[in-house]
Amino acid sequence: VTDTAARPRVVVIGAGFAGLNAAKGLRNAPVDVLVIDQHNYHTFQPLLYQVATAGLDAGDVAHQVRDVFRRQRNVRFRMGRVERVDWEAREVLLASGDGIGFDCLVVAAGAVYHDFGIPGVFDHGFVLKSLHEAIALRSHVLRQFERAAHDPAHADHGGLTFAIVGGGPTGVEMAGALVELLDRVLPSDYPELDVSRARVVLLEMAEALLLPYGERSRAYAERVLRRRGVDVRLGAAVAEVHADHVVLAGGERLATHTLIWAAGVRGHPLGEALGTPLGRGARVQVRSDLSLEDHPEAFVIGDMALASDPDRTPLPQVAQVAIQQGRHVARVIAARLRGEAGAPFRYQDPGQMAIIGRSAGVAELAPRLGGLRFGGFLGWLAWLFLHLIYLPGHQNRVNAFASWAYNFFTYDRHARLILDEERPRRARMTRGTMRS
Amino acid sequence: VTDTAARPRVVVIGAGFAGLNAAKGLRNAPVDVLVIDQHNYHTFQPLLYQVATAGLDAGDVAHQVRDVFRRQRNVRFRMGRVERVDWEAREVLLASGDGIGFDCLVVAAGAVYHDFGIPGVFDHGFVLKSLHEAIALRSHVLRQFERAAHDPAHADHGGLTFAIVGGGPTGVEMAGALVELLDRVLPSDYPELDVSRARVVLLEMAEALLLPYGERSRAYAERVLRRRGVDVRLGAAVAEVHADHVVLAGGERLATHTLIWAAGVRGHPLGEALGTPLGRGARVQVRSDLSLEDHPEAFVIGDMALASDPDRTPLPQVAQVAIQQGRHVARVIAARLRGEAGAPFRYQDPGQMAIIGRSAGVAELAPRLGGLRFGGFLGWLAWLFLHLIYLPGHQNRVNAFASWAYNFFTYDRHARLILDEERPRRARMTRGTMRS
Repeated sequence: VTDTAARPRVVVIGAGFAGLNAAKGLRNAPVDVLVIDQHNYHTFQPLLYQVATAGLDAGDVAHQVRDVFRRQRNVRFRMGRVERVDWEAREVLLASGDGIGFDCLVVAAGAVYHDFGIPGVFDHGFVLKSLHEAIALRSHVLRQFERAAHDPAHADHGGLTFAIVGGGPTGVEMAGALVELLDRVLPSDYPELDVSRARVVLLEMAEALLLPYGERSRAYAERVLRRRGVDVRLGAAVAEVHADHVVLAGGERLATHTLIWAAGVRGHPLGEALGTPLGRGARVQVRSDLSLEDHPEAFVIGDMALASDPDRTPLPQVAQVAIQQGRHVARVIAARLRGEAGAPFRYQDPGQMAIIGRSAGVAELAPRLGGLRFGGFLGWLAWLFLHLIYLPGHQNRVNAFASWAYNFFTYDRHARLILDEERPRRARMTRGTMRS
Repeated sequence: VTDTAARPRVVVIGAGFAGLNAAKGLRNAPVDVLVIDQHNYHTFQPLLYQVATAGLDAGDVAHQVRDVFRRQRNVRFRMGRVERVDWEAREVLLASGDGIGFDCLVVAAGAVYHDFGIPGVFDHGFVLKSLHEAIALRSHVLRQFERAAHDPAHADHGGLTFAIVGGGPTGVEMAGALVELLDRVLPSDYPELDVSRARVVLLEMAEALLLPYGERSRAYAERVLRRRGVDVRLGAAVAEVHADHVVLAGGERLATHTLIWAAGVRGHPLGEALGTPLGRGARVQVRSDLSLEDHPEAFVIGDMALASDPDRTPLPQVAQVAIQQGRHVARVIAARLRGEAGAPFRYQDPGQMAIIGRSAGVAELAPRLGGLRFGGFLGWLAWLFLHLIYLPGHQNRVNAFASWAYNFFTYDRHARLILDEERPRRARMTRGTMRS
């Protein structure tokens, strides 16, 4: 269905931070924009771990794409899965078989988990990239407790041991939220069970948590997690994953039925289908203005793109980079329509923040202005505040705020629902997942 | 796993209104109670239609069973599906193969839809008994719009025609909520589509809507729905259901891809597995104290039970009957433990209320005190108020109230997410569903 309108058509693949901001940035440009996503909603990935740990409802961290563009008249939405791009015909091809013509293409399909070739991750690991995966993980965790409640031997065989692989922000946030769930919420749900037998093991290959952070933040995160009962194991690499245990690099066997894979991501497989050179982590190599060398009418942004700082350091796969890149390509497209060249992308690093658990966060802000670091309760508050601001949808903000306030004062989490239907494990990760 | 404790063990099958109230009623009785349900949450069925029409999140109408009994120390919970009862061994048998011993049994597994033998209902119809079914229906409705947005022919072939079969309270509430979604919410989501082509057809076999209500309420409901654009067809029976059309009894063919089955329910199939006489609608025949003739240690309550008024009218399958029956069996069990006989069950009819849509409801209260009838805005407010009170879980109440207030003032509904994964239609209704 090629649009034959007079205005150039910009097709944006992906309604994540990068894609949404690209489409929003084209608000006043003389173009027709079509946003394509496999879901009819934007997923606010930074809060998926709270869905997985029963703090938020799935609906709180998702917002329908059409609502985002309600007042922007040059944007249309198409729900569909993109399979490849026909560069000759200038068409995006959907899984349904439909072809969608474009004059300009913005590819922002995000990242998928990277198993680094470790056997068993694909079959047995849980990842946290989509709403379905978050619900599946929450349901799985609660199912372990339901089982142990009537079958105490389940705890003897690692049923209540939850292993997280990867001590970056995702792993740290997950560990903090999970240990609080086990410690504060579930004991009163399972009076028949000795919930204190449940434990969270955080496995990190390097010798520190939160590697991209400064030393004080790293040490703080480790101290807080250990104090709250997380078994933090540094220098611990995973060699094999099985349904009921994990084998570490040294040969140690850790009994667990739940492996949460937060060890790394790679560019979305659509990057390979573009037929353009890939760099580290299967990310697409882009020029300084984020367009492709072979196809200057196409841009790749967000977690899929391998863009670099002027000093050639690859930019991290974080929301802020995606947001700024989305805005940038919108400006480049508008400039080109005026016959001007696009400027190179420069990342304005606002700093980074991670939550370690209740009342404990770390924030390292404004690195270019000398840096402002704070931790503890203030870091936690700053994190909550910023995530509320960025969460799309008025009602999501109200709900999330109400849930956080409620959790904070009552230590209760209302979303403890087992909502998936039990399916073969493999089915959980088919979408957006591949062996590298 | 027979409990060998000294206190008698009461097993309650089902965590609906009936089962929950039975277990709660045993708070001070010298018994151990085990509640079994296939889900770890109670589903507040009266609001499922709001989940299906994007007014509420799934989490808002579900509440984890363990939380309900947090402070009641003689109740335990087991998540599992009951397959049958071994009366000899006094054991409930789960699908997992486990047997659970009981001294006293309360069966409250609810109702499933009844297709009255009409071909195609099982394969193509949507029902509204579980959270998964509500999410599946919402996702299906929104998918029709996503499809029509890029394939206008879909509307020509009935893709935007939504047929509801059954003009009782469920059908009327669904019709009112659905027509508001089409009329007020979706047009701004789909500017590329002529949403006014979407329509809701309400098919009722009898010559009036809301049959159990008084004449004024019936006429009011019909008037409001027609005025809001629902195509109300009285005296219309469905003969066959197909994937893309319905055939009416007179031979008329109605093109629709969405048939919502609100025409009737029957007792849960577990009733047949009990091996005890069934009555009308596959409901289990019970004695006046709600116990079974052949198995006086067992009770059947709620939608599954065929209990009658003193004048032999069967009691309706509504929440109020289930709640009162739950409380009643708790009293009978406690009385028997004291060596007394249980009293017969007497339904105290508080009246009935249904919502027809925004600002329009009907309430017929206190029929034994002469009756108090009100409709319109007041009926609607009364309905909202009572449902908020009965909705379990503080946070659910806060969320539902916030959503209703938000919807009321903005005409917006935030839960417009397509959240199921597209699966063969059949899979949607396997649970608790059978041909009669």
